[in-house]
Amino acid sequence: MARTPRIALTPGEPAGIGPDLVVRIAAEPSAAQRVVVGDPQVLTDRARQLGLPLHLTPLDPTTPPRPDPAGTLHVWPGCTAPRPVTPGHLDPDNAGYVLQTLTQAADGCLDGTFQALVTGPVHKGVINEAGIPFTGHTEFLAQRCRAPLPVMMLVAGGLRVALVTTHLPLARVAEQITPERLETVLRILDRDLRIHFGLAHPRILVCGLNPHAGEGGHLGDEEIRVIEPVLQRLRAEGMSLTGPVPADTAFTPHTLEGADAVLAMYHDQGLPVLKHAGFGRAVNVTLGLPILRTSVDHGTALDLAGSGRADPGSLREALDLAVHLTMAPGGETHDPHSDGGTP
Amino acid sequence: MARTPRIALTPGEPAGIGPDLVVRIAAEPSAAQRVVVGDPQVLTDRARQLGLPLHLTPLDPTTPPRPDPAGTLHVWPGCTAPRPVTPGHLDPDNAGYVLQTLTQAADGCLDGTFQALVTGPVHKGVINEAGIPFTGHTEFLAQRCRAPLPVMMLVAGGLRVALVTTHLPLARVAEQITPERLETVLRILDRDLRIHFGLAHPRILVCGLNPHAGEGGHLGDEEIRVIEPVLQRLRAEGMSLTGPVPADTAFTPHTLEGADAVLAMYHDQGLPVLKHAGFGRAVNVTLGLPILRTSVDHGTALDLAGSGRADPGSLREALDLAVHLTMAPGGETHDPHSDGGTP
Repeated sequence: MARTPRIALTPGEPAGIGPDLVVRIAAEPSAAQRVVVGDPQVLTDRARQLGLPLHLTPLDPTTPPRPDPAGTLHVWPGCTAPRPVTPGHLDPDNAGYVLQTLTQAADGCLDGTFQALVTGPVHKGVINEAGIPFTGHTEFLAQRCRAPLPVMMLVAGGLRVALVTTHLPLARVAEQITPERLETVLRILDRDLRIHFGLAHPRILVCGLNPHAGEGGHLGDEEIRVIEPVLQRLRAEGMSLTGPVPADTAFTPHTLEGADAVLAMYHDQGLPVLKHAGFGRAVNVTLGLPILRTSVDHGTALDLAGSGRADPGSLREALDLAVHLTMAPGGETHDPHSDGGTP
Repeated sequence: MARTPRIALTPGEPAGIGPDLVVRIAAEPSAAQRVVVGDPQVLTDRARQLGLPLHLTPLDPTTPPRPDPAGTLHVWPGCTAPRPVTPGHLDPDNAGYVLQTLTQAADGCLDGTFQALVTGPVHKGVINEAGIPFTGHTEFLAQRCRAPLPVMMLVAGGLRVALVTTHLPLARVAEQITPERLETVLRILDRDLRIHFGLAHPRILVCGLNPHAGEGGHLGDEEIRVIEPVLQRLRAEGMSLTGPVPADTAFTPHTLEGADAVLAMYHDQGLPVLKHAGFGRAVNVTLGLPILRTSVDHGTALDLAGSGRADPGSLREALDLAVHLTMAPGGETHDPHSDGGTP
């Protein structure tokens, strides 16, 4: 029988909907031991405000993890927001605390205390306002884990879409599609699909950069100059890579049937389809880290914090996927020290 | 009662699947009078090869159109392929004939003989090989109709996606998103949704160019410099424009509920979703022309010509949409001379 996974859960920005979602999720039973890395007072206050039951137990890491019954969560000791939290009202004085929860959760994954990390939404603006340089959740975790290139993959139902580039102006995308970057991303994607998703021989569908995948060079030559040579080289090593295919062909249901994941060259080539198909249940998975990390795919929604109207769907899916991946073939043997960094 | 529309149907490249699809469609009854502008011998041969019934009648344009019963089509006289056609084998000597069918069909729309044009797939390569400069179906028709800027819109079910730019290398997209182009495209889209689609006040959702619609300028400034000012100006004239919205938000089912059409900035921002959702039933509609034109959204599939395995789904949808649009409110009063050119 599979061991019960112990999973770290960071509620993210305390004034946002993160605590609401965690409280909502706590009301449901889980196959995992869920350990909140965050201020218990914030959760208790939010549960009272929402009229939901919540029983918090300090974590004893020496006791083997057992599944959480409904209404209960474990808490990692020592995380306290320095300032009182009012839902909907950002306070830069709590920004350091938010990053502290991420640091402690990541370190707990690295040292084997946790088998995965599930993150709620943080607010980039208030962290910067506090004078802390911060470009994003993913980059912060990658730096903490000493992983040079995190790769963003979104999962919704059976659809998996990974990205070669992410948060760049469109005008700069083409120049960022280098052979080095593409090769590194493909190696990470192939490896992590094997390790975490239990796919012995992942079939990856690679989009072209240009419309119609360049149409033989008439609509751009990056497919010929950059993408095809990399695919040929990696195919020779045994990877199962199809493409470059036109993006509007890649996502037809018939084409998707033959693929375990689609690699899009940039953000808006891959994510509109995924969010369309995902019906608000998309999960962000960070590949290329030595730890397993899933995340909600939405922001802090300050106006909904404390209202009871925040939809916990994405956090539920993020947690379910983390549980599934830790218990899946490959996930069981997961050792944070054996597959870190880039190849 | 609505008048029966008379619709021109060009089979496109005779060696491709166009004639197969026309013969397949002919086997079904129609609410329109369907007039093939093409060589009747090619169709008769293909019908025999496929073992399908086909009765062709020369068109008498002076007789009021009546719906076609199953198995029948009308034929526009005078189009003959100069060389015998073998399915699957391109012949540059027939390229002039292919363009002749388009010219005659377009002229018939312009002079009011036809209420719409439905086009099968042509083969760009063989037309160029014949020494005829030809960049595409849409551009050819736009030139014939003296329309300076044709706008491509794809329709699948209730989803309509129009494009500001189409067949360009990705690296050149950003520079092509000019205020002038965006304004012209929006005016055409708004007007044609009113005229052809019977929408009194079309609600248009406009995507940003950059991921997250630029995130307040952090991921590109075209939204601030170009898109927002144009939207503000046109809103002041009464257009219903939402945006710029992040493309991965625009296509979520919830957001789509509030829109009659999405305007994407470029090909692979809008079409992957549409083809994903369209299940092989997407139709290409050319806006900004003084005539109504719909088209299949696939190529000539030379390897399937004459095999009986070509799927007529897209041609059927293209014809159905043309029939629907000519009979819809606004379509009835359609006058090719009143709404031509750009505003």
